[in-house]
Amino acid sequence: MHSWVDGQPADSVPLKDRGLAYGDGVFETMAVKAGQPLLLDRHLQRLQEGCRRLSLAVDHGLARSEVLVYAAALGDGVLKLILTRGDSQRGYGANPDAAVRRILQGSPPAAYPEAHGTDGIRLFPCATRLAEQPLLAGLKHLNRLEQVIARAEWRDAEYAEGLMLDMSGRVIEGVFSNLFLVRNGLLLTADLTRCGVAGVMRAEILAQAHTLGVPVAVADIDPEQLRQADEVFMCNSVYGIWPVRECAGMSWSVGPLTRKLRGIVRAHLDI
Amino acid sequence: MHSWVDGQPADSVPLKDRGLAYGDGVFETMAVKAGQPLLLDRHLQRLQEGCRRLSLAVDHGLARSEVLVYAAALGDGVLKLILTRGDSQRGYGANPDAAVRRILQGSPPAAYPEAHGTDGIRLFPCATRLAEQPLLAGLKHLNRLEQVIARAEWRDAEYAEGLMLDMSGRVIEGVFSNLFLVRNGLLLTADLTRCGVAGVMRAEILAQAHTLGVPVAVADIDPEQLRQADEVFMCNSVYGIWPVRECAGMSWSVGPLTRKLRGIVRAHLDI
Repeated sequence: MHSWVDGQPADSVPLKDRGLAYGDGVFETMAVKAGQPLLLDRHLQRLQEGCRRLSLAVDHGLARSEVLVYAAALGDGVLKLILTRGDSQRGYGANPDAAVRRILQGSPPAAYPEAHGTDGIRLFPCATRLAEQPLLAGLKHLNRLEQVIARAEWRDAEYAEGLMLDMSGRVIEGVFSNLFLVRNGLLLTADLTRCGVAGVMRAEILAQAHTLGVPVAVADIDPEQLRQADEVFMCNSVYGIWPVRECAGMSWSVGPLTRKLRGIVRAHLDI
Repeated sequence: MHSWVDGQPADSVPLKDRGLAYGDGVFETMAVKAGQPLLLDRHLQRLQEGCRRLSLAVDHGLARSEVLVYAAALGDGVLKLILTRGDSQRGYGANPDAAVRRILQGSPPAAYPEAHGTDGIRLFPCATRLAEQPLLAGLKHLNRLEQVIARAEWRDAEYAEGLMLDMSGRVIEGVFSNLFLVRNGLLLTADLTRCGVAGVMRAEILAQAHTLGVPVAVADIDPEQLRQADEVFMCNSVYGIWPVRECAGMSWSVGPLTRKLRGIVRAHLDI
């Protein structure tokens, strides 16, 4: 489907755009089914939080209505929304008169092997560490070189995702996913106040676990906790949940809570 | 002057460009005088190092010749060269067949008050800290949200630049400059192996100091060393050298080594 820029069909942005110059913006990637963007409210909530923290003045009502119209036309696929700080003057100082630019791109449904969800995946242990920057932590901003470098560490399709630690050696997330582990019935995911992306599916899973009465913790995770986990799984809003079978000599089986949460997510979202 | 993309006049890039999507690229900003890009070899050397570390396959001979032709047409001004990893497929994995995109932009000469160079400047003490990421440290890459956030901390034109520390409290650089201090005849600038941009003018000043026989150190700097400095100055390849007069209650006078280096830089570069 043709992309839009500020509500109009377009396939390019001006060279002056601060998204290109500095990665000065945020984005969301949403699964779309039968014309509906899934988990829309959560996506827009994170987007709004990103805009607030980066002082991007966005008409969120307009962004929402554009996403809905675009998704309806897309039908089934993946929708990417990028907001940038618009055109730059020279230098890092923003032009207070520049309007935030809204970019919508559509692509076909993601084609991942079904076995990723049923049998689980192998994680590549990335050497690339995430830098600790509380001002940007949690946001899905356009400064993604760490993910680019980490993703380039492996080519073997045996690895469906990579595992990323932070500079202090804490277990944080995947390259394009969040991570959960289960230990003695407790569901645990990494604290993302220093680095990482606070995923929309992560938020949904935390909410679903709460509804199920499953005890949940958001805390620092060290590699030893990962080793001792009963279950490990990755998640994002496009593929849902993938159990993790193996990483760096550690192995886990596909466990009951992972299966249950995956079933709920699939039923709710038709992923 | 009209911008170029891949050697052709253009004012936009495709939405698929990975510079926009991820900040996946590097850039250089060069002063141009009478059609000549100043410090060209140092700029291209840093660019090449950035491309090597980010695995960007660039024809550096072609980039160089384009810069020379563009600068000759620009005459006097500022030339910005951006290299991105070209068009993206979906996700962080790079398309091995995508060609690196070359973008050239020209703007009029920078218009800074002459007094910045003669009388010195005030530095705004930025609260924004630089994250420590050795994989990106030193490079002039397109992930510049920290600089965007730091530059937004002040609007008062009394402050010509800002001072940035890293997460551990070390003194690193300005928002768009490097920092030097002088103490007991020793010229000191920050080690940039964890964060910061290894400026081209910084490299030039280190070389000039060596020629002058001035002892030089590249090392960690703590705020107390800054306070006790005899002279402090900022530098970049567009404005040359600005002495620093005041920052956060600390003050310095414009010192003899700062004046001498500024004279040399101006004479060499006609800045």
